[in-house]
Amino acid sequence: MKQILILLTFSLILSCNSENKKSKKLSDKSTAQSEKPNILLIVIDDQGYADFTPFESHDKTVSTPNIQRLGKSGKVFTQAYVTAPVCSPSRAGIITGKNQFRWDKPASWGPGLPDDVKTIPEYLKQAGYNTARIGKNDLGQNFHKNDVREYPLNHGYDEFLGFSAHAHDYWANSQSIKARTPDPYGTSALLGPLMHNMGEKSYEDGYLTNILTDESIDYLKRKHNKPFFLTLAYSSVHHLIHEVPKKYLDKYNVKEIANYDPDSLVAYGNHKKGSYSAYYDKYSRVGAINTDDLRKYYLANLNCLDDNIGRVLDALNETGLDKNTLIVFISDNGGSPLNGSNNAPLTGGKYSLWEGGIRVPMAVSWPGNIAPNSTENRYVSATDILPTLTKVAGLTITDNNIDGIDLFEPNEERLLVWKWQKTWAARKGKWKITNAKENHWKSEPSAQYIAPIRDDLTIKLFDIEADPGERNDLSAKHPKIVKELQDAYNAWCDANIARETKQNKDPKKH
Amino acid sequence: MKQILILLTFSLILSCNSENKKSKKLSDKSTAQSEKPNILLIVIDDQGYADFTPFESHDKTVSTPNIQRLGKSGKVFTQAYVTAPVCSPSRAGIITGKNQFRWDKPASWGPGLPDDVKTIPEYLKQAGYNTARIGKNDLGQNFHKNDVREYPLNHGYDEFLGFSAHAHDYWANSQSIKARTPDPYGTSALLGPLMHNMGEKSYEDGYLTNILTDESIDYLKRKHNKPFFLTLAYSSVHHLIHEVPKKYLDKYNVKEIANYDPDSLVAYGNHKKGSYSAYYDKYSRVGAINTDDLRKYYLANLNCLDDNIGRVLDALNETGLDKNTLIVFISDNGGSPLNGSNNAPLTGGKYSLWEGGIRVPMAVSWPGNIAPNSTENRYVSATDILPTLTKVAGLTITDNNIDGIDLFEPNEERLLVWKWQKTWAARKGKWKITNAKENHWKSEPSAQYIAPIRDDLTIKLFDIEADPGERNDLSAKHPKIVKELQDAYNAWCDANIARETKQNKDPKKH
Repeated sequence: MKQILILLTFSLILSCNSENKKSKKLSDKSTAQSEKPNILLIVIDDQGYADFTPFESHDKTVSTPNIQRLGKSGKVFTQAYVTAPVCSPSRAGIITGKNQFRWDKPASWGPGLPDDVKTIPEYLKQAGYNTARIGKNDLGQNFHKNDVREYPLNHGYDEFLGFSAHAHDYWANSQSIKARTPDPYGTSALLGPLMHNMGEKSYEDGYLTNILTDESIDYLKRKHNKPFFLTLAYSSVHHLIHEVPKKYLDKYNVKEIANYDPDSLVAYGNHKKGSYSAYYDKYSRVGAINTDDLRKYYLANLNCLDDNIGRVLDALNETGLDKNTLIVFISDNGGSPLNGSNNAPLTGGKYSLWEGGIRVPMAVSWPGNIAPNSTENRYVSATDILPTLTKVAGLTITDNNIDGIDLFEPNEERLLVWKWQKTWAARKGKWKITNAKENHWKSEPSAQYIAPIRDDLTIKLFDIEADPGERNDLSAKHPKIVKELQDAYNAWCDANIARETKQNKDPKKH
Repeated sequence: MKQILILLTFSLILSCNSENKKSKKLSDKSTAQSEKPNILLIVIDDQGYADFTPFESHDKTVSTPNIQRLGKSGKVFTQAYVTAPVCSPSRAGIITGKNQFRWDKPASWGPGLPDDVKTIPEYLKQAGYNTARIGKNDLGQNFHKNDVREYPLNHGYDEFLGFSAHAHDYWANSQSIKARTPDPYGTSALLGPLMHNMGEKSYEDGYLTNILTDESIDYLKRKHNKPFFLTLAYSSVHHLIHEVPKKYLDKYNVKEIANYDPDSLVAYGNHKKGSYSAYYDKYSRVGAINTDDLRKYYLANLNCLDDNIGRVLDALNETGLDKNTLIVFISDNGGSPLNGSNNAPLTGGKYSLWEGGIRVPMAVSWPGNIAPNSTENRYVSATDILPTLTKVAGLTITDNNIDGIDLFEPNEERLLVWKWQKTWAARKGKWKITNAKENHWKSEPSAQYIAPIRDDLTIKLFDIEADPGERNDLSAKHPKIVKELQDAYNAWCDANIARETKQNKDPKKH
């Protein structure tokens, strides 16, 4: 076993395609190799591609020194793709290592998690890990329920503290506010106590990002007799983006906006006065906050998230756990057109298959095993996380339907496919084909949004390596490549969607 | 077993010396009797005797509807004595059922917990309980340490979350503030993360009373396969009394006072600029806040505590646990001369053996077993809690050194003794003898304080039933009773202090 790990480590180091020639020598190999590493999977929400400071050319208005520290301590991936441009299906892809449209025929918002699809925590439990999820759980449409397959305790997590929905109010985490709210579950987001294993935990005060960190550090510091796998899924920087502690707002020179209060009797659209859905809907669109300020709220929210990630890293250092903890950091989809994020130079954002929707910030660190300051410029997929982690945990995977491969052995000729509602895309080598159509969901997009060259369902072909911004459609020039990619996409669908769908026709209910 | 419990229940009901003839019939006996009850011991800090609203004649400026609800749901004790007029020794008395000066020769601040003294949680664990302590742990002088006998995990608690010291800042519960503070443990109070089992838990934001409640409710809602014993020890209403969430301050029309901040460079007395001890010392005396406002801060702090106790009661109701949960509520000593509390009609307060220091708010509720709206006017002791709870848990106690008796069978001719530094007291029947001398510790007392009739160490004798305020010294009139009580006190000390001290000469270290 030790020999296998040493070999694995060696191959990981060899595969480090470092751009930084000054990168420090690997240290502390012996301790790291002696046992299965702890694994921390940090999933954040709706972060812009340009807002990831470990990337060389990032938006300079962003201040995230801790995310930078995390990125620089390992390897950053400049072409990391998720399997969908919105939260729930993307997270299904991450946790299963599969394109979730294998079983989700509509390829839409709520693919859920069939019984026969195995998850990262299920594999890692099998490998002897203590598993916990803290934060957002957003799989399927069975929100707020703990007796469904999608609930973390039913797909491999020993512990769960968080919410099972698209979003949660950052401030309103108490039973008291829930009791006063006419529609605490009135939208796909919610307010009120967090779900905690088979019960709930109410927080009379406190800010959600801080709470999730406090609870995660508490988890990390518990004496575990097993290695741990912690998924820390922040809701930051999802809207409601303006909900940020005052000290961060002060830093970016924007004012506090009154939190939701049922007595305020604010109405919005068709939503009743004083309802949470009125408040939520108002602030989840661009408009209620002017577009300059929106970016500032976003930066403040992100800066607070960064401080929290810093606290997690500090706790790992203090306890010495950092020496044998592998950290994966990823955003569930590209920056949202509605939250003030910046995806430059990528087109579009969350909700569409343009690069801005599916190419995301990602980094992996593992002291002694991954050289610091390294960069992987070849394209990888979020589905690669599962096979990589299970390999590290010493498991041999036999499921041929897993779409991911080893993150540390990218394949430059690999086919990646996407299916999102009426749109689709495929990537192979430098080429990307897509019929992506603009989609910014609830309102006009923010000022940061880069609109696509055409807003229709026609086929577009891009040389993504040369033209990551998808400005130059080469479909007319390269009909043969269009045909090849179309055929490859169709072949993949024929081979995989039908088969998996058939397999899953009658999923057992949990 | 069932028969014994039915008998016990019957005797408890018979012993209910109810003053309220309209009290409802006992309901739900069968469920309550079928299994060992859960036990919730709520210990609060420095509450005034007059500020306990379940008492018929309480200070009408106090608003504590939830404490009232708790008191009215069971039995209130108008003459409940603790074993010392300050926190640490009083808590040692509660948790051991013994006068802590049995082993603490100086009879002073930090009696600690010798190895051979058994605690309530140790007994209840033996009876099959899941045990947890949340909040203040204040036994001995080994503050902030988890490898000492006094640490909750070392005297019978399965879980602990809180602080091991006299007090904790209400607002500063995070690692961030601790890291910036030159003297986080600079006083007997502290700031920073709470101790959590063998580690720490940091709270980036939140108010201590709210946090302790949130965590307690989370504990209560966990599915236990055993009955639970939870000690919920709030630090409220200990100074720093002014630290209260704004909505409560608004209610009492007092302003927010800036929280401790190391950068503020506030100095006080000999304490360095920016030190926590400077801030703590300043606000733990009367003077920094004018005496009218002090009462308002106290009322606000108490009102917030009351809301929190309401949340705990609501959680018990929601889960149905209330039907089989016995609740004991007690303050660790009388109202402090320094926090704005009101002990009327009692003389003195915390820090002295006048009634105001040792007679405390206390109530016990147990649906189906204790008639609601009942009052016990006979005197009882906090040492009675241990024998009462262990009896309820089905244990037979053989330790003859336990000073407590069954709370529900008060003995009107029982001898109670106190030893506090250079002072002592004894109570037997209606008589109380004491050489109590005034003591208000750090500064002049607040406006609410009732000064004693004489400020010296001479012997005073009171008919406490007729003169609870200790205004009429009858020692000259009843020399025979003085002699009898002196002899009784000396006999108790000869019989018990020497013996226990000998037993504990060489306590093993944990």
